[in-house]
Amino acid sequence: MDHTLAPAAALPDEQRFGLYRAIYTRRDTRGEFLPDPIDDAVLSRILMAAHHAPSVGYMQPWSFLLIRDIAVRQRVHAAFVQAHAEATMMFPEDKRPTYSRLKLEGILESPLNICITCDRDRAGPVVIGRTHIPEMDAYSTVCAVHNLWLAARAEGLGVGWVSIFDNDVVRKTLNIPDHIVPVAYLCIGHVRGYYQQPELELAGWRQRLPITELVHFDQWGCQNQQPDLLRELTEEQAAVATRFR
Amino acid sequence: MDHTLAPAAALPDEQRFGLYRAIYTRRDTRGEFLPDPIDDAVLSRILMAAHHAPSVGYMQPWSFLLIRDIAVRQRVHAAFVQAHAEATMMFPEDKRPTYSRLKLEGILESPLNICITCDRDRAGPVVIGRTHIPEMDAYSTVCAVHNLWLAARAEGLGVGWVSIFDNDVVRKTLNIPDHIVPVAYLCIGHVRGYYQQPELELAGWRQRLPITELVHFDQWGCQNQQPDLLRELTEEQAAVATRFR
Repeated sequence: MDHTLAPAAALPDEQRFGLYRAIYTRRDTRGEFLPDPIDDAVLSRILMAAHHAPSVGYMQPWSFLLIRDIAVRQRVHAAFVQAHAEATMMFPEDKRPTYSRLKLEGILESPLNICITCDRDRAGPVVIGRTHIPEMDAYSTVCAVHNLWLAARAEGLGVGWVSIFDNDVVRKTLNIPDHIVPVAYLCIGHVRGYYQQPELELAGWRQRLPITELVHFDQWGCQNQQPDLLRELTEEQAAVATRFR
Repeated sequence: MDHTLAPAAALPDEQRFGLYRAIYTRRDTRGEFLPDPIDDAVLSRILMAAHHAPSVGYMQPWSFLLIRDIAVRQRVHAAFVQAHAEATMMFPEDKRPTYSRLKLEGILESPLNICITCDRDRAGPVVIGRTHIPEMDAYSTVCAVHNLWLAARAEGLGVGWVSIFDNDVVRKTLNIPDHIVPVAYLCIGHVRGYYQQPELELAGWRQRLPITELVHFDQWGCQNQQPDLLRELTEEQAAVATRFR
């Protein structure tokens, strides 16, 4: 049991910038996929990044269902089409035309779909850190999704997370057993390029919120404290908005 | 509306390595915190990274409750102590001594705790992408948690996610309203160093699973396909285990 600690230091500037660049230029890709196949070495690297996410009690609850078969993807796409029609009717009438025009998935255009699942039984019934908050295992799985997403950006690929369908239909389509939770359905592939801002921002749907409105101190509702930090946050948000565009 | 796409290319090698290095050397820190305060500029950068996570329907449902007050942290710590005692009794008798010896939080030793919450009402009742899978907003919040964690690693800080307490007690302690979901409670600070492997691996609690066992093809249960990819994955997992230690 090697208890030697590695020194805690910031990563060198260029490496640290690489992480921030991946974070700030990552997009939810829908309409820009190219059909080109993904190299096995690249796919291995992004799956390995996902496999090294934090997980509650080190349970590593994730599995990766790689879907290339076009017939399977067509059935998933049909589930999307139906749910999308239902969703349209849920929006207020004045929002519906905009909503309908949005491209919200790339299931058939991307060469690869990945369903990332959570096996709640992976480490037995009692898991360190899940004893009082049962959804911790799904949260761990989301961390794996996000590692994959950032790694894909660093490799020059695009990823889109599709969530507009009935998960039970997807579960049946993919033959996923009852005790396994489908957490994320991802479309992944090479892309024509990345939008320089989130598409929903470009479409005028919503704008980035000022982070200073989202910070509380010691108790919920105690805002507008620590003016130095709030000024720093305002400046950083403005800097990020120009630096990565 | 600027629809110019930025070119899709892999990040330069050193930047790409920076992301992978953050992913592979990130640890769940519990016992290595130093009391030194965190610089406002550094704190701004890691909060900004969190604020640029993907979010369903661009709702940005997260808020950041920064807790420095030692009296507040003592109340959260008391909730941990009680839940930890309850948790110990849930494990099989032969596991209890090992479980009790594990250090599972740094609430009082770290200079800063951050509770990251999810406001389910942030973007009105109907949200793009949340119409059929309601937990998508919590999942978005987890992506913010994970961005913060990776950014903190890149800045040389440690982060630990504490999940052993009754969330309702924490909610009351922090005065969080009913419609706001506390998703993650994090301890953050400078550290003496990073373990070179996950602590639960070093403690012999669980080992990293071979990723080849976690990959399925087109349908759940179809494993052992695509031998070239599986070989690549096996080699990559071995390489990662030595490269980042």
